[in-house]
Amino acid sequence: MNGAESLLRTAAAAGIRVCFANPGTTELPLVAAFDAVSGIRPILCLFEGVCSGAADGYARMSGDPAMTLLHLGPGFANGIANFHNARRARSAIFNVIGDHASWHLASDPPLASDIESLARPVSGWLRSADPAGSLSRDAAEAIAAARSGVVATLIAPHDAQLVGDAVVASVSEAPPAPRASSAAIEESARLLTRAGKGALLLGGTGLSERGLRAAARVAAATGCTLWCDTFPARLERGGDLPPIQRVPYFPEAAIQAFSAMSAVVLAGTRAPVSFFGYPGISGRVIGERTQTAILVHPEEDITTALEELADAVGSAEPRGAPAVPSDRAQQPLGPLTPESVAAAVAGLQPEGAIVMDEGLTSARAYFSAAATAPRHSYLTLTGGAIGQGLPCATGAAIACPDRPVIALQADGSGMYTLQALWTQAREGLDVTTVILANRGYQILAIELARTGIAEPGPGCRSLTDFDPVPDWTQLARGFGVPAVRVEDAQALWRELERALAEPGPHLIEVPL
Amino acid sequence: MNGAESLLRTAAAAGIRVCFANPGTTELPLVAAFDAVSGIRPILCLFEGVCSGAADGYARMSGDPAMTLLHLGPGFANGIANFHNARRARSAIFNVIGDHASWHLASDPPLASDIESLARPVSGWLRSADPAGSLSRDAAEAIAAARSGVVATLIAPHDAQLVGDAVVASVSEAPPAPRASSAAIEESARLLTRAGKGALLLGGTGLSERGLRAAARVAAATGCTLWCDTFPARLERGGDLPPIQRVPYFPEAAIQAFSAMSAVVLAGTRAPVSFFGYPGISGRVIGERTQTAILVHPEEDITTALEELADAVGSAEPRGAPAVPSDRAQQPLGPLTPESVAAAVAGLQPEGAIVMDEGLTSARAYFSAAATAPRHSYLTLTGGAIGQGLPCATGAAIACPDRPVIALQADGSGMYTLQALWTQAREGLDVTTVILANRGYQILAIELARTGIAEPGPGCRSLTDFDPVPDWTQLARGFGVPAVRVEDAQALWRELERALAEPGPHLIEVPL
Repeated sequence: MNGAESLLRTAAAAGIRVCFANPGTTELPLVAAFDAVSGIRPILCLFEGVCSGAADGYARMSGDPAMTLLHLGPGFANGIANFHNARRARSAIFNVIGDHASWHLASDPPLASDIESLARPVSGWLRSADPAGSLSRDAAEAIAAARSGVVATLIAPHDAQLVGDAVVASVSEAPPAPRASSAAIEESARLLTRAGKGALLLGGTGLSERGLRAAARVAAATGCTLWCDTFPARLERGGDLPPIQRVPYFPEAAIQAFSAMSAVVLAGTRAPVSFFGYPGISGRVIGERTQTAILVHPEEDITTALEELADAVGSAEPRGAPAVPSDRAQQPLGPLTPESVAAAVAGLQPEGAIVMDEGLTSARAYFSAAATAPRHSYLTLTGGAIGQGLPCATGAAIACPDRPVIALQADGSGMYTLQALWTQAREGLDVTTVILANRGYQILAIELARTGIAEPGPGCRSLTDFDPVPDWTQLARGFGVPAVRVEDAQALWRELERALAEPGPHLIEVPL
Repeated sequence: MNGAESLLRTAAAAGIRVCFANPGTTELPLVAAFDAVSGIRPILCLFEGVCSGAADGYARMSGDPAMTLLHLGPGFANGIANFHNARRARSAIFNVIGDHASWHLASDPPLASDIESLARPVSGWLRSADPAGSLSRDAAEAIAAARSGVVATLIAPHDAQLVGDAVVASVSEAPPAPRASSAAIEESARLLTRAGKGALLLGGTGLSERGLRAAARVAAATGCTLWCDTFPARLERGGDLPPIQRVPYFPEAAIQAFSAMSAVVLAGTRAPVSFFGYPGISGRVIGERTQTAILVHPEEDITTALEELADAVGSAEPRGAPAVPSDRAQQPLGPLTPESVAAAVAGLQPEGAIVMDEGLTSARAYFSAAATAPRHSYLTLTGGAIGQGLPCATGAAIACPDRPVIALQADGSGMYTLQALWTQAREGLDVTTVILANRGYQILAIELARTGIAEPGPGCRSLTDFDPVPDWTQLARGFGVPAVRVEDAQALWRELERALAEPGPHLIEVPL
């Protein structure tokens, strides 16, 4: 058994089931090992940014670490944008990068580069393996680190993949997450009980069903409102789950929302920060007159802390009636607008759907429209590195083959990693992609207007408008995904119904 | 005038004419400045890897620095693979990355990352600008550095773009490249004159017309053969230019080629190194029994050194008849093969064409077929980071609007940066893309066979075969580029003739 095979056997024994891969010559022993080791399914992506985004989506939905196999520094670099998002989502990812044979590196071959410098900004764990050492032991450490919610990157020289390695190292069980301190629970309980207007801001597993139900008990007992990050990694929503508000994107609106609150308790997230810094506007959106307390940190046991908080404030039953069918979004009529698209998706999304929202400016109406939809998981762009939606939806569909996936995808950001559609076609994934085609970088036009440039000149316009207009139906068909374009809300409803009823991937282009 | 405008005015005054851009909110002052400053044309690319590859192609063909404008760490990261190729090509590139406002960074907003760590591996010059300093002076230093043949990266905080900066710094003239030492010229002359079988290995401007004509004089006087790197950044070829051989890709063939030589003189390149390291095969392909000398280093004045060497060995007229029309590749008939495709392209490419070859395994026959084609510039994948061809062809077409560009593009590598087709359509560029569609990562299958795996198992096959087969004609049309698929060599000839005769971009898919 060589190092490559022992690495894969170690990963398989640790419960890793898939590997999103775009390998090259320096990973060939690992490629060959997929035929020697059962239990890990290699999934080819035609661009590394698809691998990294799919790994993120898989990790968010499966709860298990996702694995990737990437080629040298430039191949890894192509995946960095979505690893950045995965890092912000605290997704568990185990990366293996094949490197040149160690004895060849001194010759500085054309593809050599400083892989560590490229990988460090996104990797919570990073190691260049000893060329004569045991990849199995390295992999075991990397996977254990990944399980703590980081991107763990192992650089595996070609000679380390080939060297004999009889070991299949066992991955140590993840230690239980640390508990929140009783002082933090008491302080949070005191703050929310006494606050005239209190807020509980949730992140991480605070947004799971268990976390939300505990949070609803806190809200029922204290009258506080429930909030989530602007861009949660995964939020359980709909059905009879308690309603939750989202921190607004622009700092002015977020500052206003928090200015009405006397106290904010943070549960598994940090105090919200403006996405960008605007001159004269604070980047920290909770003002100094609002008291804040940290109930539980992101790396701690969030759900238990919420349950202890609920007990501490008095175990009231949650308020608020569960959503009833009559509340559900009705079929929209007339022209395609962000509102009619939101109503169509929220009105049709099946029970148990996974909704990946990288709709950006065009999907702004969806979050409130979907509040009364059936139970679903809601995934967003955690790190702001656009091009995450199509890959993340792909990985989520691999993780949950029995659940329908809906990707709400802005056309500009979708363009960065459109190759994900091919992997959806190849794997026959049940992903319905709704392209929200406003044919430009609308967020830039909005930001220009915020700086007082309401009528941009030709230079600005050439950097925000798409002309010629890409035809997403042809692009999708080119990758093997059936696609249609719709021209009004009725057609969108009809095509969405059809796409959701048929297995396999579909794409609907929605001009806005 | 703010810092953004002073930066652009500085660049325009230094002769920068285009900026390949994919900006975001942190670059908005620079976006707005394009409407205040004339002389620099912003060219939108829908993915940053297109910006970086186009900048490389532009720099190779124009001789002037290319500029890019990219968004924060993840946006820059998407461009790294092609910056890696540009670094290996010694292309002059001036990158500007907008960063968060300095006062906002401490809050660690979602898009914050260690940009310097990401940029360092590809940047020969790197600076994070002082938020209160002068972007103009920083830009002047960066552009001066770029002119020496490096990727120069300036990280410009948002506040530095907004701060007043009345300066338009002038960029110092590039100092003349250092001359080769007379000792090096004498030693090289002695070696080639005495060698039974000598070789002159050329890189950089040694592959320009002036360099090649001087080298031909050396060959005529000494009997040495002329060689170029396996992957030259830019090689002038065809017409009456002297023939040149390319160092073989696989080390066994390269070692064999050099084993027959008693002496090798390096002119503007380094001793060739195997692309990958194979156990038991030397990575340095020139053996110890072959004497080597360095005539001139890549950063020195290569063409003058070659002319001085020609004078030193005795100024003979070059041998070898210029190519005559009857030598030109004839119209191929029958099935599509690497050979028939090579003959069609070499037989039809117009005088003055620019040929970007990222055909990899499928274009292996083109180099010899094109030896007798009319004068052309030949560009290749210098750093091995695939996904360079379509962007590089795009940038070359921007640099040379009066010359036809032909992109020989393997389908696997073309997939990484196919968004380049949109910029070709938008800018109406005269690029004819020939997709060599073998529908798989053929190089991996070859490398597997080299390791003894002639019949790969299902795991290996799933990582090398494309199924479903992408339809490049639909992908191209989706981006606004007319496209056809051909089924035999006659059809290829006909469609190639038509595409080359019509202005604007075209794509021909060639199934192999």
